[in-house]
Amino acid sequence: MLQGKASATARDADKMLTWQAGTDGSRGDAGPPVYSMENCSVARTMEILGEKWTLLVLRDAFRGIRRFEDFIAQTGIPRQVLSNRLSTLTSRGILSKETYREPGVRPRAEYVLTAKGLDVYPILVAIRQWGDHYEADPEGPPLVMEHRGCGAQVSAQLHCAAGHSVASAGEVSHRPGPGARPVNHPPG
Amino acid sequence: MLQGKASATARDADKMLTWQAGTDGSRGDAGPPVYSMENCSVARTMEILGEKWTLLVLRDAFRGIRRFEDFIAQTGIPRQVLSNRLSTLTSRGILSKETYREPGVRPRAEYVLTAKGLDVYPILVAIRQWGDHYEADPEGPPLVMEHRGCGAQVSAQLHCAAGHSVASAGEVSHRPGPGARPVNHPPG
Repeated sequence: MLQGKASATARDADKMLTWQAGTDGSRGDAGPPVYSMENCSVARTMEILGEKWTLLVLRDAFRGIRRFEDFIAQTGIPRQVLSNRLSTLTSRGILSKETYREPGVRPRAEYVLTAKGLDVYPILVAIRQWGDHYEADPEGPPLVMEHRGCGAQVSAQLHCAAGHSVASAGEVSHRPGPGARPVNHPPG
Repeated sequence: MLQGKASATARDADKMLTWQAGTDGSRGDAGPPVYSMENCSVARTMEILGEKWTLLVLRDAFRGIRRFEDFIAQTGIPRQVLSNRLSTLTSRGILSKETYREPGVRPRAEYVLTAKGLDVYPILVAIRQWGDHYEADPEGPPLVMEHRGCGAQVSAQLHCAAGHSVASAGEVSHRPGPGARPVNHPPG
């Protein structure tokens, strides 16, 4: 699959912009129309989350960490970097800054996952899974995720809306969605 | 779920290191043993992939981009940064640098996804999905992923090995895996 060489036609760089390119790394039937990458959802997400510390901060939020000093203690993240990351995550609605009052102690800020933040979980599970498979110690993964009340291990899997499991990128084709922005070679 | 306040005991920072903390952002029944984060698979993966450009380069590799100049044209990544990222991805076995010979043209280097690289796909799908949901234009997502030959939309879903779908992080519990490294409060 990886070694399949494509025709010279498909090697035309600007045609490769098309979403019809094969997702298994091979080149598909490339051709117009061509769509802008300006509103790519991967790029937009990485603008927010695409920084090592950010996803580690979220990892720790899913472990129950909520306070500035606890994030510092857990990740070793520099204070100013953490401050910036929490600010971004709060302003983007991924964490909510709340005031926690315990009797006899001054109020403290806590950062809690919002619904938007909780929905980052499949990304973290997919990352953990890849790391467990390719980067774990010989002893095995440091962490096991289990389905509560069932005990079976949890993983992120590709599925289609018709209920099929999708084994690999080679089974997936890409087409322009409703927000696709043609940039040249418009259809028709 | 988010608003559940934990007991003062669970607020002890070093106890929060435990994997027993709730994955829904609440604090679970924290307590010893405590495990090291040194071999965390999320952290190890982010050491390799945790940089905005790296995942965008891989996104483009899944779209069929293989050549240095095409990556430049697609992503706008600075040349030296791309050179560094391709070097990392190649040295970590995620891309393979291959020589492509076309008649009458000098041989050119191509970067193709390895099996380890193809396995990054669920991470990209999970990222795209979150971005489609929370960051897309009002018109909708720019890209639709379809199951080849079936046409139904593809997404990354949490499932357990017993075949249940897992609706949210709140349904997942964490326990130490075979590679977990106790750091203090050893069991027993």
